[in-house]
Amino acid sequence: MPEYRFADRAEALRQSSRKAESGIIVVNKGKIFPPLLPDISEECQIASKLSAETLQTGPAMGLTELRDSIVEFVAADGVACARNEVLVTNGAKQAIELACRVFLNPGDRVIVSAPTFATGLQIIQSHGAKFLVIPQDDDGMDVAFLEKELASLEARGEPLPKLLFEIVDLNNPTGSTMPEARRRHLIDLAKHYGFVILEDSAYRRMHFEEAPVKALKGFDDSGVVVMLGTFSKNLAPGMRLGWAVGAPDIVQRMAMLKADGGSSPFTQRLVVEMIRRGRMDEQIELVRSAMRDRCALAIAAVRRELPDVQFRTPEGSFYLWIRLPEGLSARDLTARAREEGVGVASGWDWFPNHESDSFLRFAYSGVSESDLEEGIRRLGVAYQSVTAEIADSSR
Amino acid sequence: MPEYRFADRAEALRQSSRKAESGIIVVNKGKIFPPLLPDISEECQIASKLSAETLQTGPAMGLTELRDSIVEFVAADGVACARNEVLVTNGAKQAIELACRVFLNPGDRVIVSAPTFATGLQIIQSHGAKFLVIPQDDDGMDVAFLEKELASLEARGEPLPKLLFEIVDLNNPTGSTMPEARRRHLIDLAKHYGFVILEDSAYRRMHFEEAPVKALKGFDDSGVVVMLGTFSKNLAPGMRLGWAVGAPDIVQRMAMLKADGGSSPFTQRLVVEMIRRGRMDEQIELVRSAMRDRCALAIAAVRRELPDVQFRTPEGSFYLWIRLPEGLSARDLTARAREEGVGVASGWDWFPNHESDSFLRFAYSGVSESDLEEGIRRLGVAYQSVTAEIADSSR
Repeated sequence: MPEYRFADRAEALRQSSRKAESGIIVVNKGKIFPPLLPDISEECQIASKLSAETLQTGPAMGLTELRDSIVEFVAADGVACARNEVLVTNGAKQAIELACRVFLNPGDRVIVSAPTFATGLQIIQSHGAKFLVIPQDDDGMDVAFLEKELASLEARGEPLPKLLFEIVDLNNPTGSTMPEARRRHLIDLAKHYGFVILEDSAYRRMHFEEAPVKALKGFDDSGVVVMLGTFSKNLAPGMRLGWAVGAPDIVQRMAMLKADGGSSPFTQRLVVEMIRRGRMDEQIELVRSAMRDRCALAIAAVRRELPDVQFRTPEGSFYLWIRLPEGLSARDLTARAREEGVGVASGWDWFPNHESDSFLRFAYSGVSESDLEEGIRRLGVAYQSVTAEIADSSR
Repeated sequence: MPEYRFADRAEALRQSSRKAESGIIVVNKGKIFPPLLPDISEECQIASKLSAETLQTGPAMGLTELRDSIVEFVAADGVACARNEVLVTNGAKQAIELACRVFLNPGDRVIVSAPTFATGLQIIQSHGAKFLVIPQDDDGMDVAFLEKELASLEARGEPLPKLLFEIVDLNNPTGSTMPEARRRHLIDLAKHYGFVILEDSAYRRMHFEEAPVKALKGFDDSGVVVMLGTFSKNLAPGMRLGWAVGAPDIVQRMAMLKADGGSSPFTQRLVVEMIRRGRMDEQIELVRSAMRDRCALAIAAVRRELPDVQFRTPEGSFYLWIRLPEGLSARDLTARAREEGVGVASGWDWFPNHESDSFLRFAYSGVSESDLEEGIRRLGVAYQSVTAEIADSSR
C-alpha cells in the first residue's frame, strides 16, 4: 500500500473501531423509534408511476412542488418567503455544508455558541474556519456578550465573522429557546456587522407545550438569515431531505455548489405526496406526543438511577442534556456505560474547542420505552462504578 | 439587501438566466429517454415495508447488501474487491467531490486530460486545485506525454500532483477507450510518482460492440486507483446513487467527510432489489441497444444536416463529440441553435482551461428518435445561418 498524501482535513481522521455490538441499547443519536415511522406504500405507488420525473435527474433547486410546500410549511413559523428563496437539500446537514461553501474561505471566522450541534461544528471546521465561541445561558446564545466581542474585534481592526450558526428553538443539545427580544438584538448585530445567520430549525416543531416565538427568519427584514430545516425529525430520516430558506443570491449559489447532482426527485416526490395528504402534520403530532411521554419517562428514570446529576427539563425535542457532578469525566462514564450495554454520547464533541467533559447527551427518541428504562438503569450502574472508583482513588 | 461577503469560489457564480423554454429539444445532458426508465413499483413495495431500515438514517458507508452487490458488479469489470473497499455515494459526482476532500489542499495539482467531464473539472476546481493538463489522442490520455511532464516537474523540484482524474472507458466526451498497455503504464506512473487515480467508469457498460479491456482498477495491484461508478446510466439517474471502490484507508475517509448524513437507505434498497431481481442487467441491455440505434440515427442525420463537421464514430455511450470547421465558434453556434429550438452544449466547458471553442457535445440519449432527427435538423439550420454570416462578414 502506498503512503497516501491526504489533505490536511483528512490526515487525522480515524475510523471508529467500535463495532455495532448486539445487545447494546443505543441512545446516542437523534433517531426516531421505528414503529413511529410512517407507512409510505401509497406515496411510493404514486412516485413510481411518475417515473419521467422521479427517476430522472431533477432541478438543482429541488422540485417546484416541494419548494412550494416548504413555503407553506415555514409560513406557520412566521416566515413569509417565495419559491425562489427555497432550496431543497439532502437534509439540513447538506444545507450547512453548502452555506459554508458559499461563504467561507479558510481562516474565516464563524460565530457559534457552546455547546452546539456537534456535526454542524465538524462541517464548519472542515472548511478551515475559526470559531468565535459565545457562551449560553438559559435563553440560548448570550447576545450581549456577542455584541461586546464584535465591538472589540472591530476596535482592534480584526476581520469580522462572516457566519453565525445557532439553533434558537429547542437547542440541540441544551433544549433552550431564545426569547423574542434577544432574536431582534441578534438580527440587529448581523445587519450592523455584516454577517449571515444560519438558523438551524431542525427541532422547532418538537415542542411539548405551546409553540415557540416565531422563527428567527421571521424577524429578518433584510436577508441576513438563512433558515435551515429538515424532514428527518418530522417525517423520516431515510428520505435525506431538508431545505434552506434565504435570499435568492445565497440559495442559488448554494445550488450551484452542489456536487452531487441534486437531491433525488424520487424521495422529493414521496415527501410532496405525504405533505399533500396531510401526513406531515399527523406525523409531527405523533412523534411529538411520543417524545413528550418518553421525556417524562427518561426524567423519572434518571432521577431514580443517577440522583446526583443535573439537567434542565426540556420543553421539547429528543434529548436530555445532563451535567455530571464535579470531577466526573463524561468520556470515562460513556466508555464504562458501553461496557454495561448502553451507548450514550458524551457532550465533549458538542463543545467547539472541547471546553467541557462534564456533560452527557442522552437521546430518548430512538428506542422503546422499556429499552429506555433499561438503558438508564445500565447507565446508573456505570455511574455508580465510575463514582466508586473516584472515591477509592482519592482515599 | 446587504452586500454579502462570499467565499472566493462563490463570488463569481452567476445563475444562468436561461429559462426552460417550451418547444426546445434538449440534447445537452446525458439523460435517459423517459420510456427507457424502469417500472420500480414492486421494488417500492418491498422498500416501504422495510421501514426500520429504509426510513431511518443509514450507515455512512452504505447498506451492506448494496456494497456486496457492487462487489459483484465490478467483478465483471475484472476488479476483485471486498466489501470494506466499497463506499456508496450520491452518484459518481459525490464520489469525485469526496475524493477531492480527502486528498486536496488548495493549490495541489491534479492531472486531467483535455477534453474531459465538465462537472468533474468544476468539482476539482472548487477545491482550489491547479490542473496539469495532458493532451489526448485516439487512445485517450497521452501517458507518454504525462511521463515527461512528471519527470520534468520532479527535476525542477516542483510539487508532484496528488490526483489524476480520467475516464478510460468511453471517455465523456470523446468516446475513446484506453488500450491495455497504456493502462499498465499509467498505473506504473501512479506508483512511481505517488499519485492516486480517480477512474470514472460511468459509461463503461454502454459499449455497442465487444466489452472493453478490464477496468483500470483491475490492473491495480497496490491501491493507487479509486474506481468510481454510478447507477445513473444503467438504472435511473433519479436514484442519485453511485459508488467508489478503493483502499479502505481512502474510502473510509471519504465516508467520514460526507456532510449530508449519507445516501438514502430507501433508494439504496430500491437498487438492491432491482439488482437482486436481475433488472440491472436487463436495463443495461435495454439502454445500450436503444443508444446504439440512436447513435446510428444521429450520425446519419449529422452527416446530412452538417456535412462539413468531423466526428469519431462512437464505440458506445451517449454522445457525439463534433469538431466544427476552422473559424466557427461553438458557443456562437449553440446560442444560435437555441434560437432555432435546440439546446446543445458547446465543448467549451469540457476543456480545463477553455482551450478550444471548436467542439459540440451532442447527447442523443434523452430524446425520442423523432426529436433527435428534428433537433439535428434545427442544428443544421443554425449551422447554415452562422456559416453564412461568417462568409458575409469576410467578404
